Amino acid sequence: MSINEANKKCLEKIQESTAIWSDIRPAKDVVPGMSERTVLHAGPPVAWNQMCGPMRGSIIGACIFEGWASNPEEVAQLAENGELEFDSSHHHHAIGPMSGIITPSMEVNVVTNTVHGIETYATLYMGIGKVLRHGAFDDEVMAKLRWMNYELAPLLRNALHHAGGIDLKNIVTQALQMGDELHNRNKASNALLLTALVQHLISVGEQSEVLKAIDFIDKAGHFILNTVMAGSKGMLDAGAHIKDSTIVTAIARNGYETGIRVSGLGDKWFTAPAPMIDGVYFPGFGPEDANPDMGDSAIAETIGLGSFSMVGAPAVVEYIGGTAQFALETTLKMYEITAGEHETYKLPPINFRGAPLGVDIRKVVETGITPIINTGIACRRPGIGQIGAGLTATPMACFTAALEAFACRKEK
Amino acid sequence: MSINEANKKCLEKIQESTAIWSDIRPAKDVVPGMSERTVLHAGPPVAWNQMCGPMRGSIIGACIFEGWASNPEEVAQLAENGELEFDSSHHHHAIGPMSGIITPSMEVNVVTNTVHGIETYATLYMGIGKVLRHGAFDDEVMAKLRWMNYELAPLLRNALHHAGGIDLKNIVTQALQMGDELHNRNKASNALLLTALVQHLISVGEQSEVLKAIDFIDKAGHFILNTVMAGSKGMLDAGAHIKDSTIVTAIARNGYETGIRVSGLGDKWFTAPAPMIDGVYFPGFGPEDANPDMGDSAIAETIGLGSFSMVGAPAVVEYIGGTAQFALETTLKMYEITAGEHETYKLPPINFRGAPLGVDIRKVVETGITPIINTGIACRRPGIGQIGAGLTATPMACFTAALEAFACRKEK
Repeated sequence: MSINEANKKCLEKIQESTAIWSDIRPAKDVVPGMSERTVLHAGPPVAWNQMCGPMRGSIIGACIFEGWASNPEEVAQLAENGELEFDSSHHHHAIGPMSGIITPSMEVNVVTNTVHGIETYATLYMGIGKVLRHGAFDDEVMAKLRWMNYELAPLLRNALHHAGGIDLKNIVTQALQMGDELHNRNKASNALLLTALVQHLISVGEQSEVLKAIDFIDKAGHFILNTVMAGSKGMLDAGAHIKDSTIVTAIARNGYETGIRVSGLGDKWFTAPAPMIDGVYFPGFGPEDANPDMGDSAIAETIGLGSFSMVGAPAVVEYIGGTAQFALETTLKMYEITAGEHETYKLPPINFRGAPLGVDIRKVVETGITPIINTGIACRRPGIGQIGAGLTATPMACFTAALEAFACRKEK
Repeated sequence: MSINEANKKCLEKIQESTAIWSDIRPAKDVVPGMSERTVLHAGPPVAWNQMCGPMRGSIIGACIFEGWASNPEEVAQLAENGELEFDSSHHHHAIGPMSGIITPSMEVNVVTNTVHGIETYATLYMGIGKVLRHGAFDDEVMAKLRWMNYELAPLLRNALHHAGGIDLKNIVTQALQMGDELHNRNKASNALLLTALVQHLISVGEQSEVLKAIDFIDKAGHFILNTVMAGSKGMLDAGAHIKDSTIVTAIARNGYETGIRVSGLGDKWFTAPAPMIDGVYFPGFGPEDANPDMGDSAIAETIGLGSFSMVGAPAVVEYIGGTAQFALETTLKMYEITAGEHETYKLPPINFRGAPLGVDIRKVVETGITPIINTGIACRRPGIGQIGAGLTATPMACFTAALEAFACRKEK
């Protein structure tokens, strides 16, 4: 099969995929390969001594939540003694924003690609600011995490079962007509999700807990993000492992390195140091406080959302910095490095052209253009949380390394 | 005061206005000047023998709903005998889409401009297709009308009271960042309204009636439209009656004539025959089935929404026909005939420029450009309902007549 044919096949598998938010379950019950002390994290594999501050902060919070430790020093001891089994979420069909920490007792959203029988997992979105994924772990964060895990999650699970699942691909498609790019702007999609869910919440829940759940999902603003991330991964995984395909199936960052995976190159990661983010800071913070790029949320761009669809979400430029013209130029530039256009995700301002889909490592190296990522900025110190949002470019070194590996592979 | 100063004052009063959806009450209890047999209609005043088919159909339905008659012949008798007191809704601080019929027992949304102490009224939005405002009045329509009036309205009233009112201007502002133009596209605003309302519905209602109400508001799609129309009228009325102002404060159509009102020309209507609509038809219908332009919904364009904000709502062009480029051109053209830009309603695709606000009759006559209206198309035969949607231009004759009146007035 030629490379172009392989890429076509890869994109077909991605395009025909679905994403149904079908369940919420404890990670240990559904995520494959979770041992008693597994700690999954965002991005390519990374060792404790390489991990950035906010990722360590998240791990501290997760270990306290699990009851494995009661303070940061004990967690550091566990990590240094090799008592925590760190691994990339991507090796377990899972995914998470920012540090992306998942431990066995955490409830995870289950999203099903019904066409390809792929299940993917992501924790519940916790809100903006001082939250676990940004490395915050004080008592307030812990209390919120427990409420979400032991009260909110069971209610949502019952509502989801009552609904028979919720079609995320349909919501994403609609929200692209409503100014969302589904990475940093989820205003419409979150409202559509709440609208789809609310009748089922009322049907299964007690009045007071339903009111609290609705208030939380509404105010969290991006609650849908983690489910869409899991859904996007489930679609892209359908296009993985296609021999001779040069399409990128994952872009992920752990705050230390950025890594990509390529369909025709199996599960191998091609990494480079994680870049800084050019962005807009919340009051009181600046570039000196910023952590390098972190999180699995670049799965958005990998499926054609985020910066790739930014022309459809001009309002996001106020959040990450930029102009409407810049949003247009960014989307147009991404067509230069992609192999296709999304058949379902359409962009109204450019006459409903399909979102740029399927980054081709050949085109990236040829044009010198790497995927732009819309993303949040974490504070480099643990315990603080998000301090801004902006744009960054995936390092070229990931793509040149992948293309070299691809060339060697071809010569065999 | 110079004309420009008068127009500035007019726009200031409009800009500082608010729109709070504060209550739902029977028309007879709140709408000023409702006698026992008052029948309010959209557009400038029109006599029974001039009324188009769908407006007559709506009146038949309304009279049956009120118990004044039991069939179309009896209603025609009442009308011909002068037993129905027809009047333009605008003469009673009220407004309605399409035929816009309001009779005393109908529950109406109450919207308050808290800055200027103005209350405005509009019936509850009934859904798409075969509905009263399009002239349908069969048993199904009547049953729905009764359910809305006697079950839905009291529940919504209680929820609104529990909420302490809902800020429509805030929702409109947000929805303009989410692809709505608030005339034919209300997808985002309707979801935001539901999100704002749902916790209060749950707090005051029985589970089964709450579920039914949520389902109705969600599926109706444009439920918010009538409340935004009332709110827009309340804002524009704040700018009415400014001596020497050439700003248009109402554009309204009754299916027979289109009329405008101008701030410096009091309550006088300047009318011309209602034009046809250039649009996209639902399957099975064509231009030969179409009624001329009808309804008060052009209040949207008068406040800077609808076609005036179409650049922010490219998805609407699929509904009314056109392209994203056409949406941009339409909005840009409207700046040529407006005196200002909205300080709160911002359009992301043109770098958050304020929506074109305040049609100046001088500019219309000077440029030869009249306000474009995004609108639904009613079937000319009563009882059918909406058959499409499209665009029409307000007749130039309205503006030349108004400008002549303005000139004569100045010479006094």
